[in-house]
Amino acid sequence: MTLKLLASTAALACALLASPLHADVLIDNVEGLTIDKDGKVKRFAAIVIDDEGRVSQLLAAKDKRPRTDYREDGAGRVMIPGLIDAHAHVMGLGIGALTLDLSDTNSLQEALAAIARFAAENPARPWILGRGWNQEKWGLGRFPTAAELDSAVSDRPVYLERVDGHAGWANGKALEAAGIVAGTKSPDGGRIERASGSQMPSGVFVDNATTLMTAAIPAPRPAERDLALDAAQKILHKFGITGVADMGTTIEDWQAFRRAGDTGRLHVRIMSYAASADAMELIAGARPTPWLYDDKLRMNGIKIYLDGALGSRGAWLKAPYSDDPGNTGLPLTDSARLRNVMVRAANGEFQTAVHAIGDAANAEAISAIAELSESFTGDRRWRIEHVQIVDPADLPTLGKHSIISSMQPVHQTSDRTMAEARLGPNRLDGAYAWNTILRYGGKLAFGSDAPVESPDPFAGLAAAISRTGPDGQPFGGWRPQERVNREQALAGFTSDAAFAGFADGRFGRLLPGERADFVLIDRDPLLATPEELRATKVYETWVGGRKVYDAD
Amino acid sequence: MTLKLLASTAALACALLASPLHADVLIDNVEGLTIDKDGKVKRFAAIVIDDEGRVSQLLAAKDKRPRTDYREDGAGRVMIPGLIDAHAHVMGLGIGALTLDLSDTNSLQEALAAIARFAAENPARPWILGRGWNQEKWGLGRFPTAAELDSAVSDRPVYLERVDGHAGWANGKALEAAGIVAGTKSPDGGRIERASGSQMPSGVFVDNATTLMTAAIPAPRPAERDLALDAAQKILHKFGITGVADMGTTIEDWQAFRRAGDTGRLHVRIMSYAASADAMELIAGARPTPWLYDDKLRMNGIKIYLDGALGSRGAWLKAPYSDDPGNTGLPLTDSARLRNVMVRAANGEFQTAVHAIGDAANAEAISAIAELSESFTGDRRWRIEHVQIVDPADLPTLGKHSIISSMQPVHQTSDRTMAEARLGPNRLDGAYAWNTILRYGGKLAFGSDAPVESPDPFAGLAAAISRTGPDGQPFGGWRPQERVNREQALAGFTSDAAFAGFADGRFGRLLPGERADFVLIDRDPLLATPEELRATKVYETWVGGRKVYDAD
Repeated sequence: MTLKLLASTAALACALLASPLHADVLIDNVEGLTIDKDGKVKRFAAIVIDDEGRVSQLLAAKDKRPRTDYREDGAGRVMIPGLIDAHAHVMGLGIGALTLDLSDTNSLQEALAAIARFAAENPARPWILGRGWNQEKWGLGRFPTAAELDSAVSDRPVYLERVDGHAGWANGKALEAAGIVAGTKSPDGGRIERASGSQMPSGVFVDNATTLMTAAIPAPRPAERDLALDAAQKILHKFGITGVADMGTTIEDWQAFRRAGDTGRLHVRIMSYAASADAMELIAGARPTPWLYDDKLRMNGIKIYLDGALGSRGAWLKAPYSDDPGNTGLPLTDSARLRNVMVRAANGEFQTAVHAIGDAANAEAISAIAELSESFTGDRRWRIEHVQIVDPADLPTLGKHSIISSMQPVHQTSDRTMAEARLGPNRLDGAYAWNTILRYGGKLAFGSDAPVESPDPFAGLAAAISRTGPDGQPFGGWRPQERVNREQALAGFTSDAAFAGFADGRFGRLLPGERADFVLIDRDPLLATPEELRATKVYETWVGGRKVYDAD
Repeated sequence: MTLKLLASTAALACALLASPLHADVLIDNVEGLTIDKDGKVKRFAAIVIDDEGRVSQLLAAKDKRPRTDYREDGAGRVMIPGLIDAHAHVMGLGIGALTLDLSDTNSLQEALAAIARFAAENPARPWILGRGWNQEKWGLGRFPTAAELDSAVSDRPVYLERVDGHAGWANGKALEAAGIVAGTKSPDGGRIERASGSQMPSGVFVDNATTLMTAAIPAPRPAERDLALDAAQKILHKFGITGVADMGTTIEDWQAFRRAGDTGRLHVRIMSYAASADAMELIAGARPTPWLYDDKLRMNGIKIYLDGALGSRGAWLKAPYSDDPGNTGLPLTDSARLRNVMVRAANGEFQTAVHAIGDAANAEAISAIAELSESFTGDRRWRIEHVQIVDPADLPTLGKHSIISSMQPVHQTSDRTMAEARLGPNRLDGAYAWNTILRYGGKLAFGSDAPVESPDPFAGLAAAISRTGPDGQPFGGWRPQERVNREQALAGFTSDAAFAGFADGRFGRLLPGERADFVLIDRDPLLATPEELRATKVYETWVGGRKVYDAD
């Protein structure tokens, strides 16, 4: 979609969807359900929303209806709380929507054709940017090269992020713009891929080496960021998402959030985690911000990258990769620095969210939290993001310190084959171990890691209860003992995701006093099969008692 | 005042002054006056404030009083609109309040003693920072030296800004910390002072050279900035100031303003002008922000430095300084860059405020505005800040394009002797030419340039109507034909200052619909002599119908 078309679409959408504010509303005749305060499911037939956009009453079929300013017939549709994505990259999703998406390509040839087409359609763009390629999915057995990319586009720099964001692929003009030559050294924590038997960079940059390229890309202008945020909100609403934890907010991202809030264009609740300690302090000062814009924005704390990802073998493991002996991945933040930043955050009552994928990274994050828990008591809600591969010996500690494991069910189904290759058969006992974590008393929050994966929460719910992919494989589920039940899955994408962002009591449940964030859908997620869940149709999405998406 | 004491004082003040919100208030029995919409003076005996903090009615003595929730007796005090400072540096004022102020020192010896005392009182501070020194006032006839400063403090770096902010004085440790050595070259647009007959830096840095030093100073932490903003607001309220144009807002400043707004601690209306084009776009995006926090904050546009100041001979003159033949000062922004930034701002409907002190700088600013006025029509309110020395040939153009001359009356009285020395007797016809600017149809807005001068607006009013200093000199006023009348002076510090910041209709006048920002004082500024004006006592300051300062 071009920027111009997107802008006019957004404007149109706003005009169409502006529902009455400052009036109480009854939505009757729904199959309503929510997670209740005790974690159980509560059902209702009608909801009353007050003039501040909060739930004021839930009614059963037999209850008398109050007199309200507006009344809508839910036509028997299923109403559930607005879904919350506990781990996503809002601006990445939005900017991605304005750039080239390669995540549907199934071969290098298909990708090269898409790249050439996108460049032809966007002649004015000085750089061709995109993301989503995956050489594993292409069955390439190796990284693609700059020369291959040149065969598609050679007149302008091209830079394309890998699906996991942990690697990037550049063409010749991009290498030139970034000043990359044979003698360019790989930075600490990163690797420049080289042509075999040569020092020549082959075009792919892994982990910290990606910054050599990204530093050369002109930053998006604020106006483009505003469009990107509008685009991201539109995508989220379409999937029924009304709240999101933004993992890695920069000052530029934050200013875009605020501009949207200031001008009445913020319609997704954002729990923000700063991209760095400096960003956190610049944005929030000495303490987290208050909830802004009627509970639509708060800077909660900081996201800290402790390691990379499995796909690019950047995840930090206790023992070498099974498919790359001698490589254990990389810690991106050393032990002293991790504790330093965590203490600095905790001193200001900021929450910390530590990205940890490999078992060494998870052990380190858990041990740092265990240490800090001694000095920083109270309701801290320590978070670890991803928690993909954990040494079973470390799992009980997640429960002991009530650590929140912020996990992405779809990663499990997307990555299982790759995880088996990377780790071998004997290190999977603590892999994506949702149910074990709950059993040890740990807490879960579910998300998508969008734009790394689609933000679709119904795909996440399906994966969470089945451990099978969209193809139904593997039959019976991958390590099915780690499935969660339907209520736990729904809580992970609603009330537990809110709790993980200190938003409990504000949103995440359809209970009196909470914000009236909900979706109207075509099936009951507590009854649907995984396959049916993935096919859920979102009819309408409402935020704060206001309709922000209508499928019709 | 220590940070800790300041914090507790601020908290106490908040607790004491929290007036009832959301209730209508009558303040009766006042000698009220305001500039009316036609620029004339309107008088009233009572004011009614609505529950949103706006003026709802002005009443004459004979009018019937309405029933209100609260009622106060003004006890016959004079009520005027809250004063607006059209040019100040809010965070500079606040940070200055937390650091060493040398503006009262009358000799180098006195200053050195104050510096040594302050360092002893603040043993924990890694750097000793301060401002306000003036070698002219000290009668030193030269700049002070690093060696002299070392005699006061030699264990830590010391860096002290000159009174005009255009020069800085460092000690040996500070030179060391900044890596300044004999071979360090003066940057473009700046000068490192050297010991006579030597290449050794003597300790003083002029204009752009000050950045060599300031880059070495650790930035204030956000918590310190929050305290500084509280301190600045306290100072402004004490002087009866309720609104201010912040000239040169950085992202750090802006975040402090927002944190105050977000937590209900913002009680001065800030019209913000970004410190750079990048800051402007980072903060506001593609367009000025809306008015935020009930008209308490808006990013209007950009401040652009075109030259330096007269004191440090950085002001850019058409002909050399009379007391420094061969030196014409420096343009800090070249012609192409000035137009580039102005066009970039104007494209986004941002206002531009060009700092121009010398006649060459003013000619350049005026000519750039005249050029841009052809393409950018409509209500642009082009501003020039200071407008101190203008070639009389250029004055009519200020009127032709309705340019706002944002001037600081006290600069005229403080600087007149220095200006005479710098310019000689034959270049003063367009110096601080307030009345001539008005006669040509130009617009005035008055301010203080605090912390360069005290923010006291009553001193400004006295200077504006008399062109005499606090000592009553020179008798009859300096170039008295450039005085303005009392109504013009009051408008310059109220309604015209609001107009200059696109705030007309929101605040600056006590008229129904405008914010109820006012002060209660002990004399009528339209009747008082200059001497009496300077002695005005501010009893109370109110912002948005809420008392924020009470002298008792």
